Amino acid sequence: MKNQIAQITALAGDYIGPEIMAAGQKVLATVAKNQNFDYQITDMPFGGDAIDKTGDPLPQETIDASKNADAILLAAIGGPKWDKAPRRPEQGLLQIRQELNLFANIRPTKITPAMMKFSPLKQEKPVDFVIVRELTSGIYFGTPREKHDEYALDTMRYTRTEIERIARLAFEMASKRRNHVTLVDKANVLDTSKFWREITAEVAQEFPNVTYDQSYVDAASMKIIASPEQFDVILTENLFGDILSDEAAQTTGSLGTIPSMSKGIDGPALYEPIHGSAPDIAGKGIANPFSMVKSVAMMLANSFDRQDLADQIMTGIDVAVERGIVTPDLGGTATTDEVTATIIDAINERR
Amino acid sequence: MKNQIAQITALAGDYIGPEIMAAGQKVLATVAKNQNFDYQITDMPFGGDAIDKTGDPLPQETIDASKNADAILLAAIGGPKWDKAPRRPEQGLLQIRQELNLFANIRPTKITPAMMKFSPLKQEKPVDFVIVRELTSGIYFGTPREKHDEYALDTMRYTRTEIERIARLAFEMASKRRNHVTLVDKANVLDTSKFWREITAEVAQEFPNVTYDQSYVDAASMKIIASPEQFDVILTENLFGDILSDEAAQTTGSLGTIPSMSKGIDGPALYEPIHGSAPDIAGKGIANPFSMVKSVAMMLANSFDRQDLADQIMTGIDVAVERGIVTPDLGGTATTDEVTATIIDAINERR
Ligand SMILES: CC(C)[C@H](C(=O)O)[C@@H](O)C(=O)O
Ligand SMILES: CC(C)[C@H](C(=O)O)[C@@H](O)C(=O)O
Repeated sequence: MKNQIAQITALAGDYIGPEIMAAGQKVLATVAKNQNFDYQITDMPFGGDAIDKTGDPLPQETIDASKNADAILLAAIGGPKWDKAPRRPEQGLLQIRQELNLFANIRPTKITPAMMKFSPLKQEKPVDFVIVRELTSGIYFGTPREKHDEYALDTMRYTRTEIERIARLAFEMASKRRNHVTLVDKANVLDTSKFWREITAEVAQEFPNVTYDQSYVDAASMKIIASPEQFDVILTENLFGDILSDEAAQTTGSLGTIPSMSKGIDGPALYEPIHGSAPDIAGKGIANPFSMVKSVAMMLANSFDRQDLADQIMTGIDVAVERGIVTPDLGGTATTDEVTATIIDAINERR
Repeated sequence: MKNQIAQITALAGDYIGPEIMAAGQKVLATVAKNQNFDYQITDMPFGGDAIDKTGDPLPQETIDASKNADAILLAAIGGPKWDKAPRRPEQGLLQIRQELNLFANIRPTKITPAMMKFSPLKQEKPVDFVIVRELTSGIYFGTPREKHDEYALDTMRYTRTEIERIARLAFEMASKRRNHVTLVDKANVLDTSKFWREITAEVAQEFPNVTYDQSYVDAASMKIIASPEQFDVILTENLFGDILSDEAAQTTGSLGTIPSMSKGIDGPALYEPIHGSAPDIAGKGIANPFSMVKSVAMMLANSFDRQDLADQIMTGIDVAVERGIVTPDLGGTATTDEVTATIIDAINERR
């Protein structure tokens, strides 16, 4: 942490973004007050909101405030309103990943016994794995990328350094978990995947206590449904990570429950729900605050070394689930405010 | 059909390949004998089997016999034995797709009420959609593709013609089904996807009776689990189709039940199970013959205009399911031979 008081830049974004950001900040205020955590929040425009205010989804002042922060909270951006904008909200998202070198996107998939009833899967084994997705390279950013009248092309490109640093991060995470890494690729077809296999095998040797295997991406998309308990840490490139992490999220029953962390090289990390801005339910007060509240917990544990506060928040969420105070996406009838109040009460009761 | 008597080239391949191919051919012989369908089968080496015999997974004589056929039946290829071969079995598969211009791979996902119990999904609505996957272009074949010491790259490339012809095929299929096409792409990131959207929108105008929408690939990977009933025909590029069709197959409970058809431009179509050669169960006589037997049915209906024979086969499979005569992958205890005999008996009983 570079600042004396924890500096948090908050990017509320669009549609349900501000609704869940408010919930996250209320919960943060609760644990902070109870436990002496000093912080300052700076709200900055981002996404469609920033387009409306400045014409650009990622204004320079938002970049600056993000770079100067110790951590960034992002809620959700985008929506049909800006489909025809010269730079769409998503472009801002891709750009902030690059500006802050957020090379690793970490998405936990966890189905606890209490959450099992929400899962669309019949299987009843608890699921607990993490997807480590490369976030600033691959076909998202590779050049050339061209669209002509008669053909178009994109380039999936990776350098050794890009693969090494994220592979190392995946093995480090595994060594604090169940000591297993699965590289997901398409090495029977792609040259970049063969390259990932070579380099990851080298990195694996630095971690003799972590077991290591590989899966083709098509097979992995089946295993996430058929036998998710076999995974601990899934390491994969940008596009495969995009697809598989959404699939994995869906197996928990609702995207509305899943946070993520995007780690930079030495700058601040960014925490955000994995879902979008859900224009269809915006303004109704029924957005699930779990994903944002868990993003706050992830931030406290990882950027501020306050696992204690993160645990309090997670317990608060468990209590809301146990009491059945959940939003409609989880089959409940509670509002965002009611769920948030339940979490806050549970935290306060347990002080 | 170019030959007087239906000419079928059979590529049994590796491990369970020959076991299920035998089952498929027995069922074919049964309906053919009953109903006056004249055909000749030519068995040719392919995959690891062909590497062992000739050093090449796709020998020239196999290419020739395939090109001269009216239809091709392929069982399954590959296995660890040939991992270090100069050209692996998979290379043969990619090459035969190109040699025969098999530009469209059609994979049905169907969960009938009888099959519901095998599905890993809790949801109980019948599922019935088809994935139309582009099979001879995209990042599988695009150049440049390079692997150096410090970086590697692959190229996803599509021409207008390649997209037009498969889009048209998808809309034609939809117009014989429930009149809906969903294009799956990543148009918020990829130039090739933007190109797919433009061209598919043009093709859509030729089919005013077919409704048309789009889904990002990450969202589609969720919908296949969360609300598969919304799909009729999914149109997508090669790599996305690879991932999503395996995911979709898994929602039916076992890959062992799913056939596929790969259509050429004017040459013969190729029919094959979507699963691999399953080295772990080879030789045990327990491979599920459903996928191969259904591939035979798909061939009869599509290459030989014999929907009547296809229907008889599908009824035979239903009977085996009803009687619980299924292989271990579906929770049963029957052998490949017992399942096959049940299908044949059911066909003969119903003559
Ligand atoms: C909005 C989109 C560009 C983005 C991505 O593909 O990375 C999103 O799907 C995500 O996963 O964060
Ligand atoms: C074996 C492999 C090259 C192939 C593919 O990726 O196309 C397979 O997964 C398939 O779907 O037929």
